[in-house]
Amino acid sequence: MVLSDIEIANAAELEPIKDVAARINIPEDKLIPYGNYKAKIETDMNFKKENEGKLILVTAISPTPAGEGKTTTSIGLADGLRKIGKKSVIALREPSLGPVFGVKGGAAGGGYAQVIPMEDINLHFTGDFHAITSAHNLLAAMLDNHIHHGNELGIDVRRINYKRVMDMNDRQLRHIVNGLHGKVNGTPREDGFDITVASEIMAILCLSVNIEDLKERLGNIIIGYSYDGKAITARDLKANGAMAALLKDAIKPNLVQTLEGTPAFVHGGPFANIAHGCNSIIATKLALEYGDYAITEAGFGADLGAEKFLDIKCRYADIEPNAVVIVATVRALKMHGGVAKDDLEPENLEALRNGFENLERHIDNIKNVYNLNPVVAVNQFPTDTQAETDLLIELCEKLGVKCALSEVWAKGGDGAIQLAEYVVEAAEKPSKLQFAYDLEDSIEDKVNAIVQKVYRGNGAKFSAKAKRAIREINELGLSNLPICMAKTQYSFTDNPKSMGAPTDFDISISEVRLSAGAKFIVVLTGSIMTMPGLPKRPSAENIDIDSNGNITGLF
Amino acid sequence: MVLSDIEIANAAELEPIKDVAARINIPEDKLIPYGNYKAKIETDMNFKKENEGKLILVTAISPTPAGEGKTTTSIGLADGLRKIGKKSVIALREPSLGPVFGVKGGAAGGGYAQVIPMEDINLHFTGDFHAITSAHNLLAAMLDNHIHHGNELGIDVRRINYKRVMDMNDRQLRHIVNGLHGKVNGTPREDGFDITVASEIMAILCLSVNIEDLKERLGNIIIGYSYDGKAITARDLKANGAMAALLKDAIKPNLVQTLEGTPAFVHGGPFANIAHGCNSIIATKLALEYGDYAITEAGFGADLGAEKFLDIKCRYADIEPNAVVIVATVRALKMHGGVAKDDLEPENLEALRNGFENLERHIDNIKNVYNLNPVVAVNQFPTDTQAETDLLIELCEKLGVKCALSEVWAKGGDGAIQLAEYVVEAAEKPSKLQFAYDLEDSIEDKVNAIVQKVYRGNGAKFSAKAKRAIREINELGLSNLPICMAKTQYSFTDNPKSMGAPTDFDISISEVRLSAGAKFIVVLTGSIMTMPGLPKRPSAENIDIDSNGNITGLF
Repeated sequence: MVLSDIEIANAAELEPIKDVAARINIPEDKLIPYGNYKAKIETDMNFKKENEGKLILVTAISPTPAGEGKTTTSIGLADGLRKIGKKSVIALREPSLGPVFGVKGGAAGGGYAQVIPMEDINLHFTGDFHAITSAHNLLAAMLDNHIHHGNELGIDVRRINYKRVMDMNDRQLRHIVNGLHGKVNGTPREDGFDITVASEIMAILCLSVNIEDLKERLGNIIIGYSYDGKAITARDLKANGAMAALLKDAIKPNLVQTLEGTPAFVHGGPFANIAHGCNSIIATKLALEYGDYAITEAGFGADLGAEKFLDIKCRYADIEPNAVVIVATVRALKMHGGVAKDDLEPENLEALRNGFENLERHIDNIKNVYNLNPVVAVNQFPTDTQAETDLLIELCEKLGVKCALSEVWAKGGDGAIQLAEYVVEAAEKPSKLQFAYDLEDSIEDKVNAIVQKVYRGNGAKFSAKAKRAIREINELGLSNLPICMAKTQYSFTDNPKSMGAPTDFDISISEVRLSAGAKFIVVLTGSIMTMPGLPKRPSAENIDIDSNGNITGLF
Repeated sequence: MVLSDIEIANAAELEPIKDVAARINIPEDKLIPYGNYKAKIETDMNFKKENEGKLILVTAISPTPAGEGKTTTSIGLADGLRKIGKKSVIALREPSLGPVFGVKGGAAGGGYAQVIPMEDINLHFTGDFHAITSAHNLLAAMLDNHIHHGNELGIDVRRINYKRVMDMNDRQLRHIVNGLHGKVNGTPREDGFDITVASEIMAILCLSVNIEDLKERLGNIIIGYSYDGKAITARDLKANGAMAALLKDAIKPNLVQTLEGTPAFVHGGPFANIAHGCNSIIATKLALEYGDYAITEAGFGADLGAEKFLDIKCRYADIEPNAVVIVATVRALKMHGGVAKDDLEPENLEALRNGFENLERHIDNIKNVYNLNPVVAVNQFPTDTQAETDLLIELCEKLGVKCALSEVWAKGGDGAIQLAEYVVEAAEKPSKLQFAYDLEDSIEDKVNAIVQKVYRGNGAKFSAKAKRAIREINELGLSNLPICMAKTQYSFTDNPKSMGAPTDFDISISEVRLSAGAKFIVVLTGSIMTMPGLPKRPSAENIDIDSNGNITGLF
């Protein structure tokens, strides 16, 4: 009988979080317990290079609807590393509340590779996202309040680009008009809500290295422009101090555990398109400080997630991975090789061989663009045949890259022993991260570098709107920020249907947005949905709680 | 030098919350720590009558801008009871986040009578309000999602009376139009946001006696009506299970401590106008279970707060106070006696004697309408003269009511020794709560009973709109719910300027609203603001956090 994720999670015996912390020598006085199985960690954020363990980044091939299992692999790998005697620690993103009530269910791994207590992690956890929601909406309220009380700064209500947020899938709030009903009730204007993970403050929290940096970045948020074209910031509205105060606990990383008791920092969770899609720098640094191996992941496939992890997060954090695990599945590679989703079950070596080009390009990027050490993890599915997995391993080894089967979903850490050994081996090899672009390059050159080196396209075509935005950013003197690409995750191109490893294509840049607080320039290749909706039968309909407080139907 | 509230709070030495809990014999395994100084309490909510201590309700005269200090008195009284050897426990409301950034500052007592850690209590605390916000907005999202996906229930979008909420003072969100921008983005309709404390779910959480009751009440929430006039509930939308799951931790009371280490349950905080304005029933029952004296308070003056505490909360909780403390100040009584706010400093025995009629009526209500034992607490101000306080005590004693000076702001528990002694004495006297009305009476009769017995007016005049609403409630078969009056707190009448103890007046009922989930009928005497705004210079502008995480400017 196959148990569901929540059944496995509920059957697990949780260790008191103080014991989990003690295992990696976190002093008890640094532990801020949230119940007995979750804690925040007190830190002065004064991390020392010489105390850093090895950093392992888990990324993936271009995702398909067949599923890859990056989080599950990350968790299982950390458990596997412990099985072979290594002190491993995980650093992951926090799941968002909104999607839990939609189609998706939780985001805390799966099978026997999960972080727990999963219903807590998937519901309010330690309140970080709520704090971000509050800080975000405080700035919005102060902004409209400023306009209401006379608009001394001359904010142009037609040029406000700071929306409100809510941690909910609520399409009804995407486009609104507010400030209605006369002069005591604000100023009528167009507005809207994003989901909290899309808040610039989420990205800021994840990229800040300490409280000073957090305040500085919050102050830099541009909410819009004045009638005479001046950028108006959160600092101009005197909101950044109170916003930072609201984030005083949220900035402290959360500690939980895997089903096997491996310590896991779960902290922050920005969008992987309009933001950089990684957990917080502070959590990653804590994992490096307390672990000999810190396992972390980045959203989407390696062209997006790893690229931003390396070119944005590593730059701001002054860290770099000692090994990069690329998660692939036989099923997904067969899809990249041209097989339709419904025809994935039968063995198909030809399609696998064809689809391998997607993995090959990601491997090549990690090795030759970024100068890092890749390892491939094949997240095994019951339908995979021996011939298929053998072929995949053979294809990788031809490239000089180790490839291990990962059976962590079914076996936990025991399913990742070989993967763990390969990762240790790769992490011992010397490497020196090379960025895809220099910050001093022009915005256009930086985008072209990503397109040409990482996506392997001909170049980027900028719309008139994008060009105008670039001009404005140049005028603000902020062109030297890193680039945050918002592109479909399904393809190296900007067309989600173009699978495998396409060549001879352009990337069309529709829009360029400045996230002056997060300190990156968002480059969009199309419209990005920043407020999801619920499906016709939301999963919320099946969620319940019994009179003893036990939750059912969550997954 | 007079220290500010936050200076006093920061100078206090906090006891670990487990030691505070141990003092009232809360078993350590019932404690869910949130850091070292806050905890939630695990309870099966199976409270036994025979384990109940004495219940002390703290209420007040009709408030004035001069300030009364109910919360401060409640805290100081509990500390005072401990000084005279009684095991006292406090049950208070949680402060709302929104107003902290406006004009008001915190709501955790003042001077040497505070609950701490005050910046935590005033910011996110243990996340209860955020959970309520999420549960509330999940229902709103499911409602609009239902309409978006075909509106099977035939919800009339013109008759939706369920708004969204945010814990923020944000006037811009009072009146909005949402669902704009075409068919993939919802259905255009008029909507708006209330502040979270105005959410019906806040009232529900506070009136539920266990999780079953919570789910039942959540399911009963009426979000609007169908095109054929049928009431549509949260249960119809299958939202109540997930909403209750979101409240799984929020329903557990929070434990903190006073500056003197007295245990304080701080839990729930509904509006005192459109809701009943008391902390949760579960927290009050926990305080009664663990304390020999449980001190609790009700919002606004006794005509509103105590009336609703007694006629709504006591009814649902099956509890009743053994003594009722009415807080008065010389300054406020002088205002009731006709003195303007700026002229309060000089001694004015005449005005005090005139204004005493306000206190006298509240005393009479407690004694003769509700059949309970009143005690008066004079919250002392430095400007009060000896002659004034002597006169006030004399006037009370003429009525056969004990009156003690309360100096808790300046002295903590030492400032409430005599008050504590009077309270113990009053609580020993027999009493048997008599409600102001029977549930079986008609809505009109219940409202008239409150108006005539408690306010001492001639009767209630119902608008056509109110009459129509009453007819609908009768048709739904829900007329037997208690009444929740939403009237100005400044007067026994519906005119805030009519101070003292007016006679010969009518109460005009503008509107009647059904809170089918909270299980009360809200009767409004005018328009009630359910989403505050920020002032021109919001206090948020002065709030900051230093690099060590210390918050400044909060108060």
